[in-house]
Amino acid sequence: MTTHLQREIEGLKKRILHMGARVEDAVRGAVASLVGRDSQLAEDVIARDEKMDEIEVEIEEECLKILALHQPVAVDLRYVIAVLKINNDLERIGDLAVNIAERAAYLASHPGLEVPLDYEGMAELTQLMLKRSLDSLVNTDAELARQVRASDDEVDAMNRQMYRILEEYMAQHSDQIPESLHLLSASRHLERIADGATNIAEDVIYMVEGEIVRHQPEDFAQQQ
Amino acid sequence: MTTHLQREIEGLKKRILHMGARVEDAVRGAVASLVGRDSQLAEDVIARDEKMDEIEVEIEEECLKILALHQPVAVDLRYVIAVLKINNDLERIGDLAVNIAERAAYLASHPGLEVPLDYEGMAELTQLMLKRSLDSLVNTDAELARQVRASDDEVDAMNRQMYRILEEYMAQHSDQIPESLHLLSASRHLERIADGATNIAEDVIYMVEGEIVRHQPEDFAQQQ
Repeated sequence: MTTHLQREIEGLKKRILHMGARVEDAVRGAVASLVGRDSQLAEDVIARDEKMDEIEVEIEEECLKILALHQPVAVDLRYVIAVLKINNDLERIGDLAVNIAERAAYLASHPGLEVPLDYEGMAELTQLMLKRSLDSLVNTDAELARQVRASDDEVDAMNRQMYRILEEYMAQHSDQIPESLHLLSASRHLERIADGATNIAEDVIYMVEGEIVRHQPEDFAQQQ
Repeated sequence: MTTHLQREIEGLKKRILHMGARVEDAVRGAVASLVGRDSQLAEDVIARDEKMDEIEVEIEEECLKILALHQPVAVDLRYVIAVLKINNDLERIGDLAVNIAERAAYLASHPGLEVPLDYEGMAELTQLMLKRSLDSLVNTDAELARQVRASDDEVDAMNRQMYRILEEYMAQHSDQIPESLHLLSASRHLERIADGATNIAEDVIYMVEGEIVRHQPEDFAQQQ
């Protein structure tokens, strides 16, 4: 029975990592389509959304099956519940990537803004957070998960900076309001992807240590 | 044992409804502070966020305790998992309400826009969706939950309309870009609250019928 459960849990791990890899791909593609003004790449990202949705439902069904058939306890129960939640976060991140790609598709067919916006820097940190949150899941590494939490403020600051620049730009370029609003959305979506990675990291900490750290100030959580 | 489990599940139901009532209050207060340009009310909503976060963690711990101690199956298992997910959605809706209140606090201390924006109409439908999603949970009423899903497109359309009006306004009033952006955010947050209510409704349908309907076109789901 236990061996069977362990096999099921291993299978679940493979599936959630497969989902994670797909979502990482979507984020990478969305950012590249935005920065490179590449509408074909944007369309590719949008087209792959359905598959992510399918995998999310499969993983959720698998989690529920394991709970019903094996009635796991302690660390196994926490693992299955963490996967259930992380799966949900990954699907939301995938949706945000698709939304960025939609903005990118619009922007690629409109004149670019003459303003320096560091989407690459913001995306790099966000993608690193996502990668680390998934690595922390694979290696059940709460320390790495804490690093993800610590980066979230930095991405928030980058988003605020982007907001200030675009707000100023719009006041001076009333003919480029729609383009500016699309860029603003892309920045906000990146920031929400970073939030999603933070949620995943918090679920990993819970899984490893059995403690719910979200809503706790980060310093406090680090002392735990 | 079963009776004990039933009691625990009844307790869980009370708690999630208490959380739901608080979140509904927060949304109502946030919208009233926005429409009435009432910064004191906005601050009240913001101040109550911490309590919602606390209740969310308590409910999640309760769900995990029930899963670990009682190892529920079938409809009871689905109920506990649905509450776990709905709890998460409610907390996110609470955060969105707080975010609207933050926008309202800013807007109350700045000149109003001379433009007709129907926040009341949009908020009314959104709040109705939230109320119905919680009612569908109390009464395990999948039919009512389906009505919530059906309203989501309407709120999306209202948000797009708000976006068009504000985009136009910004192009003509370059001195009111910050105010317009705050109003745009409030509309988008309302739309995301409606999405949250839709998620809750989908979890109720799953709980009642054991079928995951999200990502399915609504017509298809209705035929099931």
